[in-house]
Amino acid sequence: MNYIAAAIASAFAALAASYGNGQVISKTLESMARQPEISGQLRGTMFIGVGMIEAVPIMSIVIAFMLLLAK
Amino acid sequence: MNYIAAAIASAFAALAASYGNGQVISKTLESMARQPEISGQLRGTMFIGVGMIEAVPIMSIVIAFMLLLAK
Amino acid sequence: MNYIAAAIASAFAALAASYGNGQVISKTLESMARQPEISGQLRGTMFIGVGMIEAVPIMSIVIAFMLLLAK
Amino acid sequence: MNYIAAAIASAFAALAASYGNGQVISKTLESMARQPEISGQLRGTMFIGVGMIEAVPIMSIVIAFMLLLAK
Amino acid sequence: MNYIAAAIASAFAALAASYGNGQVISKTLESMARQPEISGQLRGTMFIGVGMIEAVPIMSIVIAFMLLLAK
Amino acid sequence: MNYIAAAIASAFAALAASYGNGQVISKTLESMARQPEISGQLRGTMFIGVGMIEAVPIMSIVIAFMLLLAK
Amino acid sequence: MNYIAAAIASAFAALAASYGNGQVISKTLESMARQPEISGQLRGTMFIGVGMIEAVPIMSIVIAFMLLLAK
Amino acid sequence: MNYIAAAIASAFAALAASYGNGQVISKTLESMARQPEISGQLRGTMFIGVGMIEAVPIMSIVIAFMLLLAK
Amino acid sequence: MNYIAAAIASAFAALAASYGNGQVISKTLESMARQPEISGQLRGTMFIGVGMIEAVPIMSIVIAFMLLLAK
Amino acid sequence: MNYIAAAIASAFAALAASYGNGQVISKTLESMARQPEISGQLRGTMFIGVGMIEAVPIMSIVIAFMLLLAK
Amino acid sequence: MNYIAAAIASAFAALAASYGNGQVISKTLESMARQPEISGQLRGTMFIGVGMIEAVPIMSIVIAFMLLLAK
Amino acid sequence: MNYIAAAIASAFAALAASYGNGQVISKTLESMARQPEISGQLRGTMFIGVGMIEAVPIMSIVIAFMLLLAK
Amino acid sequence: MNYIAAAIASAFAALAASYGNGQVISKTLESMARQPEISGQLRGTMFIGVGMIEAVPIMSIVIAFMLLLAK
Amino acid sequence: MNYIAAAIASAFAALAASYGNGQVISKTLESMARQPEISGQLRGTMFIGVGMIEAVPIMSIVIAFMLLLAK
Repeated sequence: MNYIAAAIASAFAALAASYGNGQVISKTLESMARQPEISGQLRGTMFIGVGMIEAVPIMSIVIAFMLLLAK
Repeated sequence: MNYIAAAIASAFAALAASYGNGQVISKTLESMARQPEISGQLRGTMFIGVGMIEAVPIMSIVIAFMLLLAK
Repeated sequence: MNYIAAAIASAFAALAASYGNGQVISKTLESMARQPEISGQLRGTMFIGVGMIEAVPIMSIVIAFMLLLAK
Repeated sequence: MNYIAAAIASAFAALAASYGNGQVISKTLESMARQPEISGQLRGTMFIGVGMIEAVPIMSIVIAFMLLLAK
Repeated sequence: MNYIAAAIASAFAALAASYGNGQVISKTLESMARQPEISGQLRGTMFIGVGMIEAVPIMSIVIAFMLLLAK
Repeated sequence: MNYIAAAIASAFAALAASYGNGQVISKTLESMARQPEISGQLRGTMFIGVGMIEAVPIMSIVIAFMLLLAK
Repeated sequence: MNYIAAAIASAFAALAASYGNGQVISKTLESMARQPEISGQLRGTMFIGVGMIEAVPIMSIVIAFMLLLAK
Repeated sequence: MNYIAAAIASAFAALAASYGNGQVISKTLESMARQPEISGQLRGTMFIGVGMIEAVPIMSIVIAFMLLLAK
Repeated sequence: MNYIAAAIASAFAALAASYGNGQVISKTLESMARQPEISGQLRGTMFIGVGMIEAVPIMSIVIAFMLLLAK
Repeated sequence: MNYIAAAIASAFAALAASYGNGQVISKTLESMARQPEISGQLRGTMFIGVGMIEAVPIMSIVIAFMLLLAK
Repeated sequence: MNYIAAAIASAFAALAASYGNGQVISKTLESMARQPEISGQLRGTMFIGVGMIEAVPIMSIVIAFMLLLAK
Repeated sequence: MNYIAAAIASAFAALAASYGNGQVISKTLESMARQPEISGQLRGTMFIGVGMIEAVPIMSIVIAFMLLLAK
Repeated sequence: MNYIAAAIASAFAALAASYGNGQVISKTLESMARQPEISGQLRGTMFIGVGMIEAVPIMSIVIAFMLLLAK
Repeated sequence: MNYIAAAIASAFAALAASYGNGQVISKTLESMARQPEISGQLRGTMFIGVGMIEAVPIMSIVIAFMLLLAK
C-alpha cells in the first residue's frame, strides 16, 4: 500500500513542478524577446521563482522517499 | 491507509502551490516586461503574494507529515 | 477512514486557496502595471480579498485537524 | 462514514468560496484599474457580492461541523 | 449512507451558488466600469438575479438538512 | 439508497439552475450596459427566460422530495 | 435501484434543459442588444426554440416519474 | 438493471438533443441579427436542422421506453 | 447486462449524431448569413453532410435494437 | 460480457465518425462561403476526406457485429 | 475478457484516426480556400499525411482482430 | 489480464500517434499556404518530425504485440 | 499485474512523447514560415529539444520492458 | 502492487517532463523567430530551464526504479 502512495506523491510532485516551472520559464523567454534590455533582471526573478515553486514538490518527494522506506 | 492519505495531501499541496506560484510569478514577469520602471514594487508584491499562497499548502504538508507518523 | 478524510479536506483547501489567491494576486499585478498611480489602493483591496478568500479554506484546515485527532 | 462526508462538504465549500470570491475580487481589481474614479462604489458592490457568495458555502461548513459531531 | 448524501447535496449547492453568483456579480462589476451612470439599475438587476440563482441551491441545502436529520 | 438518489437529483438541479441563470442574467447585464435604452425589454425577456430555465430543475427538486419521502 | 435511475434521469434532464435554454436565451438577449428593431421576431424564434429544446428533457422527466412509481 | 439502462438512455438523449438544438437555434438567432432580410430562409433551415438533430435522440427515448417495459 | 449495453450504444449514438449535426447545421446557417447568394449550394452540401454523419450512429442504433432483442 | 464490448465499440465508432465528419464538413461549408468559385474542388476533397475518415470507424462497427455474434 | 479488450482497441483506434484525419483534412480545406493555386500540392501532402496518421490505428485494429480470435 | 494490457497499450499508442501527427501535418499545411516558396523545406522537416513522433508509439505497439503473445 | 503496469507505462510514454514532440515540431514549422532565413538554426534547436523531450519517455519505455520481463 | 506503482511513477514523470519541456522549447523557438539577434541568450536560458524542469521527474524515475527493485 505504501508503494502506491510513494508513486502518487512523486508522480504529482513531478507534474506540479513541471507545470509551474514550464509556465514561469516560458513566460521569462517571452518577456526577454519583448524587452531584451532587462533580461538580466528577468532571469534573476526567474531563479527566485523557480526556487519558490520547487519548494513544495521537493517536500512531496521527501515524503515519497519516507513512504518508500516505511515498513 | 494513512500512507495513501499522506500521499494525497502532499501531492495536492504540491499541485496547488505550483499552480498558484506559477500563475503569480509568470504574471510578475509579464508585468515587469511591460512596465520595467516599477519592477521593484512588482517584485515586492510578488513576495507577499507567494507567501500568502504557500500558507495553506504548507499546512497541508504539515498534515501529511502528521499522517505519516500516525500509527 | 478519518485519515483519508483529513487528507481530502486539507488537499482541497490547499487547491482552493492557491487557485483563488493566484487569480487575485496575478490580477493585482496586472492592474498595477496598467495603472501604477493607484497601486496602493489596489494592494489594499488585494489584502482584503486574500483575507476573505482564505476564510473558508482555513475552516476546512481546522476540520482536517479535527478529523486527524478524531478517534 | 460521516468523516468522509464532513471532508467532502468542507472541501467543496472551500473550492466553491475560493472560486466565486476569486472571480469577483479579480474583476473588481480589473475594473478599478479601468475606472479609478468609481473605486469606492465598486468596492462596496464587491463586499455585498462576497457576502452573498459566502452564504451557501458557510452553510455547507455548518453541515460539515454537524456531520463531524454526528455519532 | 444519508451522511454522504447530505454532504453531496450541500457540496454541490455551494459549488452551484458560488459559480452562478460569481458570474453574475463579476459581470455587474464589469458593466458598472463601462457604464457608471446606470450603476443603480445594474445593481438592482444583480439583486434580483442573485435572489433567483440562490433559490434552487437553498432548496438543496434544505434537503441536506432533512437528510442529516433522517434516521 | 433513496437518500443518495435524492442528493444527486437536488445537487444537479442546483448546478443546472445556477449555470443557466448565471449565463442568462450575466448576458442581460452585459446587454444593458451596451444598450441602456432597451433595458426594460431586456429585463422582461430575462424574467421569461429565468422562468423557463427553472421549470425543469424545479421538477427535479420535486422528484428529490418524493425520493426523500419514499420508503 | 430504480430510485437511483430516477435521480439520474431527472438530474441530467435538468442539466440538459438549463444548458440549452441558457445558451438560446442568452444569445437572444445579445442579438436584441445588437438589433433592437427585430426584437419581436427574435423573441418569437426564442419561444419556438425553447419549446423544441424542452421536448426531450420533459420526456426524460416523464421517464423519471415512471421509474419512481415502478415497483 | 434495466431501470438504470432506461435512465442512461433517456438522460443522454436529453443532453444530446439540448446540446445540438441549443447550438443550432442560438446560431440562427445570431445570423438573424446579422442578416435580418433572410430570416425566413434561416428559420426554415433551422426547422429542417432541428428535425434532423432530434431524430436519433427520439430513437434513444424509444429504446428507453422499451427498456422500461422490458421484464 | 445487454440492457445496459443497449443503453450505452443508443446514448452515445444520440450524443454523436447531435454533436456532428449541430456543428454542421450551425456552420451552414453562419455561412448562409455571410453569403446569402449561394445558400442553395450550401444547403445541398449540408444535406449530403448530415446523411454521411448519421450513417454510423444509425448503425449503432441498429446494434442497440439487436442488443435489446438478444436473449 | 461481449454485449458490453459490442456497445463500447459501436458507441465510440459513432462518436469518432461524427466528430471527424462534423469537423471536415463544417470546414468545407466555411471555405465554400469564403471562396465560392472553387466549391466543386472543395466538395471533391470533402468526399475523399469523409471516405478516409469513415474507414476505421466502419471497421470498428464490423468488430461490433462480430462481437454481437460471438458466443 | 478479450472481448472487452478488442472493443477498447478498436474504439480508440477509430477515435484516434478520426481525430487526426479530421484535423488534417479540415486544415487542407482551409488552406485550399486561402491559396487555391497550390491546391494540388496541398492535396498531395494531405494524402501522405493521412497515410502516416492511419498507420498506427490500423495496427491497433489488427490487434483488435487478433484479440477477437484469441481463445 | 494481458489482453486488456495489450488493448490499452495499442489504444493509447494510436491516440498518441494520431494526435502528434495531426498537429504536425496540419501545421505544415498551414505554413505551406502562407509561404508556398519553402514548401519543400517544410515537407522535409515534416518527414523528420513524423518519424521522431512515431518512434515511441511504435515501441508501444511492439510492447502490445509482446503482451499479446505473453502467456 | 505487471502486464497492466507495462501497458500503462508504455501508453503514457507514447502519449507524452507525442504531445511534447508535436508541440515543438509544429512550432518549429510555424517559425520557419515566419522567418525562413534562420531555418537552419531553428531546426538545430528542434533536434536538441526533441532529444531532451524523448529522454524521460524512453526511460519509461525501458521500465515497461523491465516490467514485461519481471516475473 | 509495486509494479503498478513503478508504472504510475514513470508514466507521470514522462508526462510531466514532456509537458514542461514542450512548453519551454516551443516558446524558445517562437522567441527566436521574433528576435533572432538574441537567440544565443534565449538558448542559454532554455538549457537552464530544461535542466530545472527535468530535476523532479528524474527523481520520480529514480523512485520508479527503486519500486521496481523493491521486493
